[in-house]
Amino acid sequence: MTEEANVTRGPEQLPGDHAADEVDLRRVGIDPDFWYPVARSARLPRGKVLAASFAGRRIALYRGAEGTAYALEDRCAHRQVPLSLGVVEGETLRCCYHAWAYRGNGRVSRIPYLPKGADRPPRGVRSYPVRERYGLVFVFPGDPALAEAAPLPVLPEAESPRHRTMMFERTVRCHYSFLHENLLDMNHQFLHRGVLGRIRPELLGYETGPASVEARYLFVPSGGRKDRGAGLLSGEGRGGADTPDVVTIRTEYPYQTLRDVPESSGSAAFSLWAAYVPEDPDQRVSRVFGLLSIAKPALPGALHLAWPLIRRFTERVFAQDRMAVEAEQRAWDEQGGDWNQEVFPLILDVRKVLRANGAPLPNPPRSHACPQADTCADARGTGVQGDTRHP
Amino acid sequence: MTEEANVTRGPEQLPGDHAADEVDLRRVGIDPDFWYPVARSARLPRGKVLAASFAGRRIALYRGAEGTAYALEDRCAHRQVPLSLGVVEGETLRCCYHAWAYRGNGRVSRIPYLPKGADRPPRGVRSYPVRERYGLVFVFPGDPALAEAAPLPVLPEAESPRHRTMMFERTVRCHYSFLHENLLDMNHQFLHRGVLGRIRPELLGYETGPASVEARYLFVPSGGRKDRGAGLLSGEGRGGADTPDVVTIRTEYPYQTLRDVPESSGSAAFSLWAAYVPEDPDQRVSRVFGLLSIAKPALPGALHLAWPLIRRFTERVFAQDRMAVEAEQRAWDEQGGDWNQEVFPLILDVRKVLRANGAPLPNPPRSHACPQADTCADARGTGVQGDTRHP
Amino acid sequence: MTEEANVTRGPEQLPGDHAADEVDLRRVGIDPDFWYPVARSARLPRGKVLAASFAGRRIALYRGAEGTAYALEDRCAHRQVPLSLGVVEGETLRCCYHAWAYRGNGRVSRIPYLPKGADRPPRGVRSYPVRERYGLVFVFPGDPALAEAAPLPVLPEAESPRHRTMMFERTVRCHYSFLHENLLDMNHQFLHRGVLGRIRPELLGYETGPASVEARYLFVPSGGRKDRGAGLLSGEGRGGADTPDVVTIRTEYPYQTLRDVPESSGSAAFSLWAAYVPEDPDQRVSRVFGLLSIAKPALPGALHLAWPLIRRFTERVFAQDRMAVEAEQRAWDEQGGDWNQEVFPLILDVRKVLRANGAPLPNPPRSHACPQADTCADARGTGVQGDTRHP
Repeated sequence: MTEEANVTRGPEQLPGDHAADEVDLRRVGIDPDFWYPVARSARLPRGKVLAASFAGRRIALYRGAEGTAYALEDRCAHRQVPLSLGVVEGETLRCCYHAWAYRGNGRVSRIPYLPKGADRPPRGVRSYPVRERYGLVFVFPGDPALAEAAPLPVLPEAESPRHRTMMFERTVRCHYSFLHENLLDMNHQFLHRGVLGRIRPELLGYETGPASVEARYLFVPSGGRKDRGAGLLSGEGRGGADTPDVVTIRTEYPYQTLRDVPESSGSAAFSLWAAYVPEDPDQRVSRVFGLLSIAKPALPGALHLAWPLIRRFTERVFAQDRMAVEAEQRAWDEQGGDWNQEVFPLILDVRKVLRANGAPLPNPPRSHACPQADTCADARGTGVQGDTRHP
Repeated sequence: MTEEANVTRGPEQLPGDHAADEVDLRRVGIDPDFWYPVARSARLPRGKVLAASFAGRRIALYRGAEGTAYALEDRCAHRQVPLSLGVVEGETLRCCYHAWAYRGNGRVSRIPYLPKGADRPPRGVRSYPVRERYGLVFVFPGDPALAEAAPLPVLPEAESPRHRTMMFERTVRCHYSFLHENLLDMNHQFLHRGVLGRIRPELLGYETGPASVEARYLFVPSGGRKDRGAGLLSGEGRGGADTPDVVTIRTEYPYQTLRDVPESSGSAAFSLWAAYVPEDPDQRVSRVFGLLSIAKPALPGALHLAWPLIRRFTERVFAQDRMAVEAEQRAWDEQGGDWNQEVFPLILDVRKVLRANGAPLPNPPRSHACPQADTCADARGTGVQGDTRHP
Repeated sequence: MTEEANVTRGPEQLPGDHAADEVDLRRVGIDPDFWYPVARSARLPRGKVLAASFAGRRIALYRGAEGTAYALEDRCAHRQVPLSLGVVEGETLRCCYHAWAYRGNGRVSRIPYLPKGADRPPRGVRSYPVRERYGLVFVFPGDPALAEAAPLPVLPEAESPRHRTMMFERTVRCHYSFLHENLLDMNHQFLHRGVLGRIRPELLGYETGPASVEARYLFVPSGGRKDRGAGLLSGEGRGGADTPDVVTIRTEYPYQTLRDVPESSGSAAFSLWAAYVPEDPDQRVSRVFGLLSIAKPALPGALHLAWPLIRRFTERVFAQDRMAVEAEQRAWDEQGGDWNQEVFPLILDVRKVLRANGAPLPNPPRSHACPQADTCADARGTGVQGDTRHP
């Protein structure tokens, strides 16, 4: 499979990998009906406010005095100044400008100067369901009625005492689909030759489901310089020789995981979970959150010593991937569309999965109408929410 | 009036404060038929040229050898290079590129190399009426025929020996209307709580005219840390205790004033005059010019000593206001329109005044046709200005 | 001719120098069927790749192990990552991402992991004819069939042992036509008064052909400070007094030359060749390549000593020209069109020559369709290029 094949002719095909009647994958929005991480819990102590975002929706995250995290539309109902510039008071958030106060459910609780007989003020702003786990603050940006039933990712290793977990968070200027394709197509190891040494990834097999693609590769080292962190991460330092690893990568919409099992040991040396969260309305910028869980070696403290080297190694690999996927996005921007001509079948599959599970982007991207007119609590006088009486 | 009211329901209303058939206030241009400051006189010594602008019209200001200031369209009639890059010679301005010379009225007076029999050159460029007062250079960007009759602002305190005046000039990236609303709505003192201490502004009353809104507030200090300059400005340092002040704010189109009278003294401690001059064609950036006239205290030199503290204090307050109004403009830009939901009646009034007294913005903002075709002196061969013979 | 004429009236004319049915000169693309320099040869050693561009077409230049330079479309056929991020191996260029290898003619020669039975991969990318001379790498961006017959510029002095040649390369943010007009209209010496002293350029005559305009000026020094390099360049330091020079400037589409002959010597003191290569799709940014060939003086080594002063002088002059032509482009951008009102006949001529010899710009500038669909080798399955079988 991984033999060096010369280029041969195949059946004729149109330029680009999407049929004329299919939408360009890079214009497919991510499905908002999932839990998405938007910040690390550690960055949000009690009484603090943070600005976050999901696909162009600005979100003010704050943590009340009781320790609960809330997520509000980051825009005061009064004059649209960001609530993330505001001040936490107890469980409420006050706008910095005219001191309007909001509850965690987005309702205005107090306007300090409201004259008697004034027009009815707006009810409030949209709020988002919030959960916290694995050190991350997750919000549910889609239909709130679906939030309760939607599961958070299940990551036993991120909570197991036999593993230690490293957290990543950074912005990559590309559509989330480039990131899924990058990780699933392990033929891109050429990009990492200076860090990982020369590797011949052999595809062992793959399966595609309605919302998933899983590929298994055999990684056979074949020489070249290698970053020390690479060996430490895959357990070499713990007695393993430079042996092959089985690497399993899985897109399980909308998340992605990677699992590395050295052939010599039989159990996972490490596993990675990643979420790619669109930041801007066009979804051409992604915030990447990653959890890298590493099995603790027998020797206590060894992993602690190796930690900075492993972090440096992963940062180097990630920087190379970022360069490549951002170059892909720039090419897309210049061309105004997707010219990819893919030859690797499982990548064609993941493109289909991401297209089928995605959601339409708002069109045009920056509408002059309120994009949340139907779900937004700040429309006055609609009377549709009978339970919204102010105390 | 300023009691802390809980939110109550009022009559139903549409989102945003303008009716469907009204233009968005942030798309209303300022009326050009007024005198607008565009530079400080001190920045324009004899023989110097400056680039200024009004609502996207670039202006070359220069001062001739005799001391007179002139304002020309900042664009050579020949090849449109800015005349503000040029050289003053006597009362004329020469373009830096091919040395065409212009008189203060915009007419070309000399082209050093013009061949005999050449096509008739352009007559010149537009000029603007100029006046100087209070240390400011004012231009009249509208219909020149109206300039003579249009009054300059009357600011006796800016010229009185019993006051000393501090000048401000800075760029704020927002539509001028946000600045009017900011100053008139004193309920925003929450924004300044770190500088002014806690203040409960009580609205004593307000009046609205066809081109004006005037509001009177009682400012009652209610604790909290306060910048020292704040007290010095309102005359506390001069024997007054921490007593209430009556603050009168007036929008008198297109200018704005604020007057502070401590209840203990009965005469104004200070007064502020401000003009908000759009810089760009879309009028989403304003150049603010302010004159803050402070009554001199009985003790000579006391104000001199307090001067740097007062300046620091006003800079701090202004920086907070700028943060808020620029955030409002950014929200408008993202939303593509005005979503304000105002509850304070006098702000609804000033919005009406600004809308009623404004002028349409050029639409589309950057036309491919000459925006000054009717008033511009550089159209060749129109023959409409019989008195334009070159000497 | 160069007498200081007062402005006189001529026949009536429309604003701007193009008739209503003519295209705006600043929207005329340069004709791609010429050889254009895109890099210095010295920047491209063996085994190196460089990113270059011509009018928005990104080009990967690389030099193989044998010393030959190649120019490929800078976009991998697979996922459009720039090939200029790749690695040279022998005479081929490998993409940095998935290691696809390309030959110098743009054909894919190897895909390391291509599975048997996979879809036929793309054939490759576009390549451009390359030639090297005068220390410059030239490409032919137009119809490759015309490349062989198209001559490179003939610059005997750039290769003569009796001259020494200084090379220039810099980006100027303007349409190439502004640069032609700048150099041909020597009445702009006012711009350089601080560097060249006061000069009265007298137009001796000019001729216009279908693809050329040539003007001859007499440069008579008339006082003022002068940069030392100016005198050294024109041979003053070699015994000549401050005598007049005959300066001949020629636009020979698409290049431009300037030749300086001091009246005292009768032979050229220096000559300049310049090419203005559009970088971006809208052709509003130009890369300027210049070769300044200076006659060696009798005294060996004198030119060597003068070299840094001459370079500083030319840099100063060029910086002033750049300021002026970039200001012209900014004015065009703001106005959305050409408002030039030219009075100098030979400039009207060169504008006609540049318009007549140019090519249409792609319209709209950034099409969503592949701009190279007809000439691009990476369209799959078209079957039109029967000789493209992969080995």
